[in-house]
Amino acid sequence: MKVLKYFSACAWSLTSCVMLHAQEQQNTIVLAQQGSFAVGGRVLQAEGTFDLSDAMNPQGQTFHGDHAYVFYQMPKQAHRLPLVFLHGAGQSKKTWESTPDGREGFQNIFLKRGFGVYLLDQPRRGAAGKSMVGTTITPIADEQFWFTQFRIGNYPDFFPNVQFPKDKDALIQFFRQMTPNTGSFDGVVVTDALSELFTKVGDGILVTHSQGGGPGWSTAMRNEHVKAIVAYEPYSGFVFPEGEAPAPIASTGLFGALKGGEVPKADFLKLTKIPIVIYYGDNIASTSSAVWNMDHWRSGLEMAKLWAATINKYGGDATVVHLPEVGIKGNTHFPFSDLNNKEVADHLWEWLNRKGLVQDVAVGDMADLEKQQVIKLSKQKWQWMADKNTALLDHLFDAASVFVHMGGSWGKEQELQVIKSGGIWYKKADVHEVSVHIMDQTAVVLNRIDLLAVVGGNEVTNPFIVTEVYVKKGTEWKLGSLSFTKVSVPVRSNP
Amino acid sequence: MKVLKYFSACAWSLTSCVMLHAQEQQNTIVLAQQGSFAVGGRVLQAEGTFDLSDAMNPQGQTFHGDHAYVFYQMPKQAHRLPLVFLHGAGQSKKTWESTPDGREGFQNIFLKRGFGVYLLDQPRRGAAGKSMVGTTITPIADEQFWFTQFRIGNYPDFFPNVQFPKDKDALIQFFRQMTPNTGSFDGVVVTDALSELFTKVGDGILVTHSQGGGPGWSTAMRNEHVKAIVAYEPYSGFVFPEGEAPAPIASTGLFGALKGGEVPKADFLKLTKIPIVIYYGDNIASTSSAVWNMDHWRSGLEMAKLWAATINKYGGDATVVHLPEVGIKGNTHFPFSDLNNKEVADHLWEWLNRKGLVQDVAVGDMADLEKQQVIKLSKQKWQWMADKNTALLDHLFDAASVFVHMGGSWGKEQELQVIKSGGIWYKKADVHEVSVHIMDQTAVVLNRIDLLAVVGGNEVTNPFIVTEVYVKKGTEWKLGSLSFTKVSVPVRSNP
Repeated sequence: MKVLKYFSACAWSLTSCVMLHAQEQQNTIVLAQQGSFAVGGRVLQAEGTFDLSDAMNPQGQTFHGDHAYVFYQMPKQAHRLPLVFLHGAGQSKKTWESTPDGREGFQNIFLKRGFGVYLLDQPRRGAAGKSMVGTTITPIADEQFWFTQFRIGNYPDFFPNVQFPKDKDALIQFFRQMTPNTGSFDGVVVTDALSELFTKVGDGILVTHSQGGGPGWSTAMRNEHVKAIVAYEPYSGFVFPEGEAPAPIASTGLFGALKGGEVPKADFLKLTKIPIVIYYGDNIASTSSAVWNMDHWRSGLEMAKLWAATINKYGGDATVVHLPEVGIKGNTHFPFSDLNNKEVADHLWEWLNRKGLVQDVAVGDMADLEKQQVIKLSKQKWQWMADKNTALLDHLFDAASVFVHMGGSWGKEQELQVIKSGGIWYKKADVHEVSVHIMDQTAVVLNRIDLLAVVGGNEVTNPFIVTEVYVKKGTEWKLGSLSFTKVSVPVRSNP
Repeated sequence: MKVLKYFSACAWSLTSCVMLHAQEQQNTIVLAQQGSFAVGGRVLQAEGTFDLSDAMNPQGQTFHGDHAYVFYQMPKQAHRLPLVFLHGAGQSKKTWESTPDGREGFQNIFLKRGFGVYLLDQPRRGAAGKSMVGTTITPIADEQFWFTQFRIGNYPDFFPNVQFPKDKDALIQFFRQMTPNTGSFDGVVVTDALSELFTKVGDGILVTHSQGGGPGWSTAMRNEHVKAIVAYEPYSGFVFPEGEAPAPIASTGLFGALKGGEVPKADFLKLTKIPIVIYYGDNIASTSSAVWNMDHWRSGLEMAKLWAATINKYGGDATVVHLPEVGIKGNTHFPFSDLNNKEVADHLWEWLNRKGLVQDVAVGDMADLEKQQVIKLSKQKWQWMADKNTALLDHLFDAASVFVHMGGSWGKEQELQVIKSGGIWYKKADVHEVSVHIMDQTAVVLNRIDLLAVVGGNEVTNPFIVTEVYVKKGTEWKLGSLSFTKVSVPVRSNP
């Protein structure tokens, strides 16, 4: 099964296939950069003039709020399009981080697969707590409701096949990862900030969860930098062309019937220009059911199918994937953090590949630049050897470097000593050909040379291929080894 | 100045000095792991029994709150003690991330210097929003007050020498990085969660800011895993042995006189067992002043000095560093994100070194293991060559690998072809000596061998030193180059 899946991924793109396997072996994350910022938002300007001697009085002061908070990480070698993650109701960017049982979430999984990631706290949530509207927050015991609503099971029972860890600690972590609104949820406010983010960072793939779905569609209708949407279990916020919304879908779910919204057709058509995939997990009723959580999500899934059909009717490309139907079973409302989240990620990875959304950044220029650096360094080295400049060679040679001569091999200190004392004087290297072979942080340089050396007082000339290995440490290349291979025929006499 | 400073760092520890320079050149962050979790907290259990058919009724349900949210990152090669960062009033872990003008904050700076980092949102803040007590949040225009209170200047004037960026966008980012309490600040609640964190992760260095100072002292009195404290501009929460608190320090600051607290002497004495450094920035009054912000922090600085003197009187090790007095000028209440934050970080780095808190993890075992892996691989390779097993060699040879023979040099495909066709048959390598030299992701292996080869149908035996270079890709070592150096004397006849 697993093998077959990879084969199909390989069929789309051999490069991606190879890369997938290479990256899955990574046990480190190499970041070119990471950071955070606020984006979007509004400003309240209180009337009057600020008075330094009455500084607790709001007069003339400002209040900035309704921005999103964004934490971003860029892998050293990233695909062109980053993933922008928007959480759902009651959640924060934590949704995409470690799972409740401490495994890697989509943040790490997709970083390791070469995607830049932007994780949002939407306006009025988490670190983006400054809200332009006030609110009251009250601790209300409601976690058994959420356990059920989010389809871990029907409390206290877990669904038999559920992909949620059964230990108590994981459930407590799950409960504690919720965090309240610091102002009422407002899809327009979220859309405003999210669209600002895309304007700031450019093209990207939007990944939404649940209540984030609605602002996701709105943002894509407003901002052309949204190049694809991946929506996990959207429920509210589906929008249809004016006059085309289906009848509300009745449900025994605790939020009642599910209604579609309407937008001008011209706006709707913008959603037909990008690939869209919508995922739903398991334990959703197939027909009307008295089990309210299973029926709630049945209405969501049905609405999603109607919506995708409308998108596709107008020439769009929307796919609804009901995970159990493709053999991925037991998922809750949080497939990306469930026990099988790597399998869920694999399915998304394949979709992204199939839609041509996994595009490597061209690194050709960088590689050329590095090659030139190494060639220059190798050339300088011959000069420093001729000059017996052991200070510069000392800096160049790695502490663990080794040197292989016809007379034997030794380490850095002895080589420097040999050069300094004149035991061997590399008087002139006549370089006929240089090639550089870069493998990650290692560069192998081959020099075909005729070397005029003074060894024990005698001048000798020999044809060599010299293998030099350079190791990149920080921003500097260090010489790791230098080996002389005497070749049968002098290079200069080659035809 | 800069040079002198590094010299003094080098005087404490040559290893650390070298490492500092190497790491400052890094333009990437290499993480062994990162993730997030909730820690500490309490539970509300509503009376009654949960009723699935009345699931919005709190009866029998739970509410978990008052935990901290923690985001952690571990560099691939980390010092033994991580840094645990606790923000101040109105802030979140954002405090330590990107600066308001988008430069690197202490999170990145100290990651790049090899520290694991734990960034907290304290209970009732940011992603740790679930509070056991209710609250009301109202947007109040107060940012010009904070500008002044945090000593960017006396609004609208910036302090002339202030290390805060003057552009409007940076100030807006600064305002937007504040985020409200979702329940009233409670130092005990913060201490509870912070102490739980140290119990969970073990020994570490606590770095606090401002209002985080008080919970910092409390946590260190409670939990022996706090091995040092770095406090930036603490104000409230200084505690003295019972009967030894100084008289309140009067101030024109908007929070009035500053009082010290008292704790049992036995608790206080626990703070004398760890090194403590307290930093204050610039533009703090030296004597009583009518300029309220400068006078507010004067009272804080004076209290800190009295407190440190008390710690030291009882045999402790507390240092108060008033940054302008050591030549670091213009800092606000946020020295770690000011324009000169790298200089501020350098000063802390030196202190950490001087106190022996920068300890490298022993990686000897890991290095040995890798050496054994490479030696085994090199040995297998001779066998695969003898067996003409080009399938395994194909897997071993890097795509860019090169091979240097007495007859010339060529790439992977030609080498495989030569082996397959029998053009050269490496019939038997008699290995006399192997050495491995690992430099980061590169391993140079030297084999002193007598090689029985069949070349063009003729058996020949030659003494070589063979230089093999292996490059680590993911978890696998690939052969990057193989060069034969024929040595003058057969190895087997060596004495």
